[in-house]
Parts: sequence; C-alpha cells; structure tokens
Amino acid sequence: MYKKEIKVIDCTVRDGGLMNKWQFTEKFVKSVYNALADAGVDYMEIGYLSSEAAFDRKVYGPWKFCFEEDLRKIIGKGEKRIKLSAMADIGRIEYDDIPLCSESSLDMVRVACYVHQTDSAIALAHHCKEKGYETTINLMAVSTVGLRELNECLEDLNKSEVPVIYLVDSFGAFYSEDIDTLAQKYIERLPGKTIGAHFHNNQQLAFANTICAIINGVNYLDGTLYGIGRGAGNCPLELLLSFLKNPKFRVRPLIKCIEEEIFPWREKIDWGYSVPYMVTGTMNQHPRTAMAVMESDKKDAITEYYDTICGTVETF
Amino acid sequence: MYKKEIKVIDCTVRDGGLMNKWQFTEKFVKSVYNALADAGVDYMEIGYLSSEAAFDRKVYGPWKFCFEEDLRKIIGKGEKRIKLSAMADIGRIEYDDIPLCSESSLDMVRVACYVHQTDSAIALAHHCKEKGYETTINLMAVSTVGLRELNECLEDLNKSEVPVIYLVDSFGAFYSEDIDTLAQKYIERLPGKTIGAHFHNNQQLAFANTICAIINGVNYLDGTLYGIGRGAGNCPLELLLSFLKNPKFRVRPLIKCIEEEIFPWREKIDWGYSVPYMVTGTMNQHPRTAMAVMESDKKDAITEYYDTICGTVETF
Repeated sequence: MYKKEIKVIDCTVRDGGLMNKWQFTEKFVKSVYNALADAGVDYMEIGYLSSEAAFDRKVYGPWKFCFEEDLRKIIGKGEKRIKLSAMADIGRIEYDDIPLCSESSLDMVRVACYVHQTDSAIALAHHCKEKGYETTINLMAVSTVGLRELNECLEDLNKSEVPVIYLVDSFGAFYSEDIDTLAQKYIERLPGKTIGAHFHNNQQLAFANTICAIINGVNYLDGTLYGIGRGAGNCPLELLLSFLKNPKFRVRPLIKCIEEEIFPWREKIDWGYSVPYMVTGTMNQHPRTAMAVMESDKKDAITEYYDTICGTVETF
Repeated sequence: MYKKEIKVIDCTVRDGGLMNKWQFTEKFVKSVYNALADAGVDYMEIGYLSSEAAFDRKVYGPWKFCFEEDLRKIIGKGEKRIKLSAMADIGRIEYDDIPLCSESSLDMVRVACYVHQTDSAIALAHHCKEKGYETTINLMAVSTVGLRELNECLEDLNKSEVPVIYLVDSFGAFYSEDIDTLAQKYIERLPGKTIGAHFHNNQQLAFANTICAIINGVNYLDGTLYGIGRGAGNCPLELLLSFLKNPKFRVRPLIKCIEEEIFPWREKIDWGYSVPYMVTGTMNQHPRTAMAVMESDKKDAITEYYDTICGTVETF
C-alpha cells in the first residue's frame, strides 16, 4: 500500500510565511513543529535562509532568516523531534552566512531557482553539501520553460552532485497529463536521483497532481497544513497523509494543529481556491496580479479582473 | 484538443438546492440559465422531478418539483436557449405526475438510484424514455457497492434501453486510480452506452477525477458554478470549461454569474473543502454527519469531530 522511499516535507511556515512576511508567533511555529513530529512527517521546512543584508529584520519575521538562536527556541531543550529544512533563494544568501551543518539545527537546504539560475543553484547546493547538509534543487516555474532549455537544464542537474531535484508547478498551471510527461522526463534524464513534487492549488489540482507524481515515481512530496501558502496555496498535508496509508503517519495531530493554529489565520490572510488565482493558473502566469486584487477592496470584482488578464472582453 | 462527444451538464440549481431547499429566486435561476447558455454548456439540470404528495411546497422551492409553469418563467417568451434536465429520485415521483416530453420544457430526466434500486430506476427511465425524454441512470454511492453486486447491476443496466449511465462518487471518496478502474469497468460492461461522471469535492479531487474520467473515455461531465453543491460541493464548472479548450465554450459568462449570483450565497450556505467533509470522504461515509456539524456552532471543532468519526482517540 505504501512506498518506503516516500518522504513528506511540510512547508507550512516557509510557504505560508509568504503571505504574512513570516510574522508567526513562537507558539505557532512550536505547535506546527510538534504536530508534524507527532504526525510522523519527515521534514519541516521552517523558513528561508537569507542574509540580513538582503532583508530587514524589522519587516520580516525570524523564519525569513532561520538563525540558529531562533531554531533553538523552537526545538527547546530536548532532542530535535523532526528533520528541519530551509529554502535558499539565489542571490539572497551569502555563502559565508551559512553555518556548518554540524553547528546548525538544520538538516537540509533546498535551493530554489529559475531555469536561468541553474548554474548558481548547483554551486550553492554544492556549497551546502560541502558544509554537511542534505540538498535539493527546486526548479521553479517549469510551466514557462521551453523544451530545449529544460533539456539543457536537466543535463546540468544530472551532472551535479545534488541528489534530489524538484518538479515545481509555481503557477498552478499543470494538469495530470503535464505531470505524467514531466515526471517521466525528469526520471529519465536524472538517473539515480530522487525527484520531488511541489505543486500549487490554483486549479484545485495540487493534491491530485501530487498523487499523479507518486504514481510516476516521485518520492519527495511537499504539503502544508490546510493548504496554507502563497495565493491558492499548496497540497493540503492532511489529504496527503490520509492518502499515503503509511502506518508511520498520523492525521489527528495535523487536524488538531489546523484547529488551534491555522484556523485563526483564515481571518487575517486569504489563501486557497478563488477565481483570480484560477485565472492566473489557467493562463500560466505568476499569481502576483491575483494576489494584488485579493488584497485590495476589489477581491470580489472577478469579472473585471478576468477581463484585465484575459485581455479581451468577449461579446457577452 | 477537444472531443466533440463531450457534453457538459451544469447542476448548480439542482445540487446547490440541496443546501437551501431550492430557495433560489427567479432572478438567480434566470441568471444561471442565461450564463450557461452564453457559455455554451450543453445541459442545465434545473432541479428535481418530485410529486407534491412527497414534499411540501411551502418548505421546498419550485426546483424541487420543476413544474412546467415555473420552467416557463425562466425560459420567458423566446426560444429555449439550453437543454434542460431534471433529476428524479426513486419513490419520490409518481409516473402520472411526469408530463409528456412534448408538453414539457424538459429535455432529459436523470434517474438517481442506489444499487438496490436498479430495477426501479430502469423502469422509471424506460417510462421517461417512452414519454419522449433523453434519459440517464446515475448510480450513486458506488464506493460502497461490492464487486459482485456492481457486476450484476451493470449487467442489468447493459440490458436496459437507457443510453447514458453515470459513475457517481457521492461521498468524494475516490482517488484517480479508482476512477481508472471503475470507468474502464463501466465502459467494458456497458458497450455502446455513454458513461457520465458526477464527483464530489471532499478531497479536492472532483475536478481532477473528472479529467481522469475524460482520459478514460467518459463523455457526460457534471459541474456546478464555483463548485456549489451539497457538502464539499462539486467539480467547479469554470475549471472544467477552462480545461476543455473547446471553442464552443466561454468561461467569462460563468465568472460574471459567479460574481453576481453565487458570491452572495457564500454568506448563507457553506459548501466547499473543509475538514469534516474531508473526514467523511476519506472514511467513505455519507456526508450527513459532516453537514450537521458544519451547520452547528461546532463547525470549527474539527478534532472533536475527527475523534467521533474515526472512533478512537490516538494517544497524542
């Protein structure tokens, strides 16, 4: 019923923080940490690795930076209960600001990049690997990458020492047939590497496409509690764990954490399926215009938004 | 890119009405009617065929009955703009209360039944066929039907003169692999018949499973505006039409109707993904207990609900 190779990575704090500049309380992050550990989730992606030179700590909460002193507050005095991951964006972290893994509570660094940043991403991931971290490269917005460029990128990634490469649907534009095609291509062109999946929910397909990825042999799976995340959000972790039917997973701790910690955020930030996010998904666009309208007083003016994005006003 | 055999059936008023006893205004139903016609949708399922002996007209709105005088108010004076369908439940409509198709504005009667009602459903569908209607049988809750029983049922349906048989995921319990398995079985065991798909969204899979059904050769596809419907709701029609890429379809009229007519209902009735509906979906149960909790003041007490349904309280 289940595949032991599968690893589940929760991105609640990292991806959810894109909606509130990581202004989560210590209690929130501790509750998520304990719920994920209780649920048997493999990794908690707790935030981004960023340099203070790139972002103002007065504006951004601690999980934009993932400093060791902040990680320690979450872990407390006992043993660490779950592996921790941080994401690194190209150009926003200085190599010297990354501690040795042996001096950090982080276990994994995931390098996010666009296709034109592949070489920089490989260099950064290799640097992190040398410092002792597990590494992945998460190639974003593949739905906008041409075939020749993607093939070259995969050739470079194949030559790298990075063991895990992610298929990322940044815009929530993919249907299951796209996942079939791309997962098979990644697996074929990256022999010996593990493939990961990180999907957005613009068309209510993040969970379904994750199932499709599993069927195709993808083994690193991202989700968030109740799908919290940028725009339409992510694959809901509670659905993913229910599907996986692995006795190591427990759903109840996730439900409890959703009730106690995620529900209060529904009043403050607006994620999940809505027509503006659906429109950018179907148009294969970055959700920034949809996010802008969702944060404005015109969030329900969806016909006007549709006309703006789709460019023409149909005759009726 | 598209298959001409595909027919799209909107169930906004019929399935949405399960949430408000069909208390939609005439303006609402007219707006949906015109939006669907403008969008190129093939059928509008406007309600149920029921006898007044079975339901009180003071409690239930006109679309629980679909009387000709009410249909006429929606169509107005001109030509009918879209084919109309009504659903009939076994035992809730007297044969004599069904007018001849030539005297009705309805084009199609869809007979909904559980597996043990198959014979009655065939008899009612044949009666409707004799009166001149297009007919379908929508076999509900297949996720709870045993293999031997399903095979016998499909054998009976195969011998019938009903040309369209629906695969229905009443509880939102199916994954794509279930759809593959069942759609292939229906197609194999019902040669020459058309297969339809009606799915619920408890696990955010209604749209994804509809795509899966299309890939397997299912050609009658149900959806509703913004997914409105009982419990977690249905396949969102705006997503389905965007996917189909058929030049006969237009998405904008749907977006406009969602803005004008569906959004106001968000304040009054509660459909769409939520943890109680997810729990009944994953447990393959009727959503009635989830609907009860969602209508109570305990809708956010999801851990308590989870414990009630899943039977045991895990140790943490």
